[in-house]
Amino acid sequence: MFEFTVTATDGQARCGEFITPHGVLQTPVFAPVGTLANVKAITPVQLEELGATLVLSNTYHLFLRPGDELVRKMGGLHNFMQWHKPMLTDSGGFQVFSLAKMRKIDDDGVTFRSHIDGSTRRLTPESSIQIQQNLGADIIMAFDECADPINRPYIEQAMERTHRWARRCLEAKTRDDQALFGIVQGGIFHDLRKRSAREISSMGFPGHAIGGLSVGESKEDMYASIEVVNQVLPTEKPRYLMGVGTPEDLIEGVLRGVDIFDCVLPTRLARHHSAMTRFGRLNLMNATFAEDERPIDETCGCYTCRTFTRAYLRHLIVAKEMLSATLLSIHNLHTLVQLAKDMRAAISEGRMQSFADEVMANLKIPRTPQRYK
Amino acid sequence: MFEFTVTATDGQARCGEFITPHGVLQTPVFAPVGTLANVKAITPVQLEELGATLVLSNTYHLFLRPGDELVRKMGGLHNFMQWHKPMLTDSGGFQVFSLAKMRKIDDDGVTFRSHIDGSTRRLTPESSIQIQQNLGADIIMAFDECADPINRPYIEQAMERTHRWARRCLEAKTRDDQALFGIVQGGIFHDLRKRSAREISSMGFPGHAIGGLSVGESKEDMYASIEVVNQVLPTEKPRYLMGVGTPEDLIEGVLRGVDIFDCVLPTRLARHHSAMTRFGRLNLMNATFAEDERPIDETCGCYTCRTFTRAYLRHLIVAKEMLSATLLSIHNLHTLVQLAKDMRAAISEGRMQSFADEVMANLKIPRTPQRYK
Repeated sequence: MFEFTVTATDGQARCGEFITPHGVLQTPVFAPVGTLANVKAITPVQLEELGATLVLSNTYHLFLRPGDELVRKMGGLHNFMQWHKPMLTDSGGFQVFSLAKMRKIDDDGVTFRSHIDGSTRRLTPESSIQIQQNLGADIIMAFDECADPINRPYIEQAMERTHRWARRCLEAKTRDDQALFGIVQGGIFHDLRKRSAREISSMGFPGHAIGGLSVGESKEDMYASIEVVNQVLPTEKPRYLMGVGTPEDLIEGVLRGVDIFDCVLPTRLARHHSAMTRFGRLNLMNATFAEDERPIDETCGCYTCRTFTRAYLRHLIVAKEMLSATLLSIHNLHTLVQLAKDMRAAISEGRMQSFADEVMANLKIPRTPQRYK
Repeated sequence: MFEFTVTATDGQARCGEFITPHGVLQTPVFAPVGTLANVKAITPVQLEELGATLVLSNTYHLFLRPGDELVRKMGGLHNFMQWHKPMLTDSGGFQVFSLAKMRKIDDDGVTFRSHIDGSTRRLTPESSIQIQQNLGADIIMAFDECADPINRPYIEQAMERTHRWARRCLEAKTRDDQALFGIVQGGIFHDLRKRSAREISSMGFPGHAIGGLSVGESKEDMYASIEVVNQVLPTEKPRYLMGVGTPEDLIEGVLRGVDIFDCVLPTRLARHHSAMTRFGRLNLMNATFAEDERPIDETCGCYTCRTFTRAYLRHLIVAKEMLSATLLSIHNLHTLVQLAKDMRAAISEGRMQSFADEVMANLKIPRTPQRYK
């Protein structure tokens, strides 16, 4: 279980197969986010039809509602939400720092107020693992401290704490049908990132994540951080870039050796009328689409593009119909899931660089050269 | 085109086949309402999968947004919303009286203010038909005046106007790939209902509707009105009871010779956490369902009941996830669509009375005896 095999490489980009209790995951892969045990506005059948193979759910949210004990009683997350392919839960660390109020961090854990009802809650490395064991995802994450990425003294302190917590997570874990990934922190500071990557990768995790990126730093800083971390992380284990989900970041991430991505962006943009395509974003609320009989993206094979016109989608948006969120979510998720799939093909065929150039040219986004090849 | 064949009868209940440009409609049938060219929170694929064969859209709403001219340019409603089975549009009459503000009725038509933007709009029998011709549904409806069902002087005046308007609708209609149904009015007054049924059925419509019911009158008055109207309406043409959609009303309506039903109730209840079953309604927000591992209805074959527990649905509702509206809409619509299908089988097999008794006993609703058999 949890064997990871690199099946093809092209520069630092690679294809892999990760064996999980719910099937073999082909990487690179983009994971839709199902925060509260559902991908918003999408059924599991629609998720599968759009090509999703891995879904992430949030420990923080499920801890608060409906509670991990309830999910455990209902047979775990897979059974509760009826998604029978691989799943991943994060540790709650990021949400405690981005959503919860009045948090107090001590070396043992974090006390915070729920953003739902204001109740006082606490997460520690041990309780995060216990919750994730109750949820039962295939891949679970170490509890980490996410700090402001450019405040170096705080970043360094948070990173050290993240390392201590990572060891405690490894000790707390008892289920052997879950793979616990360690998380590298260190902000945008290359020396810290290297130290963190060395420290975390020395602990024997079956996979590693890069945390604390895509939180406000520049693209150059983000991509450089990925590079310095992946120089250190072992190539024979999967690498997961947390919370990243634009087409350009998937491209640049894969070129730097990333295997797994997740992000709320596709579904969040969908609920705000924005379609992600390989040619940029379209705001479908725009009056220019009122009589546009084309699909969102003529090159896209998703249900929405195979079926509906921009004019119809705009009508649903203007009329505030929830179906617009469903149809745009299907399209946006398909865009990223399919991009990952196309990258797998490009890597296997040794043409990842030209594929990247083409996608970025269509997006009209300049390539960011790799500093460390 | 538009031949209606009664294929089986059992008392006054009957099975029929109605030939439309988009296929043969088996009756009795329940039509989900797709107000704004979509059934809220449901894709056409989901609609088809739950067994829907006829969908209603609202002329009033589409006239205001996105406009019938736009729908025409986009190839008509079927093409716009990608529903390729039979469709029905109402005339706008009911919504002008239930939704619009500041309406002024004259003999020529109705001037009103849009409930969307307050703009002044006008509908006449001729413009309602023109709009419905632009929309292009298989079955279209005559423009009628819906009046308070117990105010006799007003009801009588509105009924007479409805008759004059019905003739104008017949004259205005030019497309021969649409069947125009006339609407019987007359409130709860048996003599008016009979007069209206005689008058409307003398005009040569290919089908007839019973309007102005299920608007506040008692069940006894509603069922008696159906009976007196159906004594007059010809048996060889389809009969459509407008805006009716509870399991008990479908049963009592079919026993009284109704063929077609539509109602927003299943999808509206779904958005308010209420599941319709053959055993009554469940409010799935209720805490008693928090750990209930059963489907909504163990006898139901819909996607929602085949897949999810009450506990999961309650979680989605409590967390205010839109997916709950989708899953409950699928279930509620399936309940009525399947009930109509089961009535077709019961009628064909000559056991409609015992089927009705069984369904009503499960619903714990006393049967209302037919006055006129």
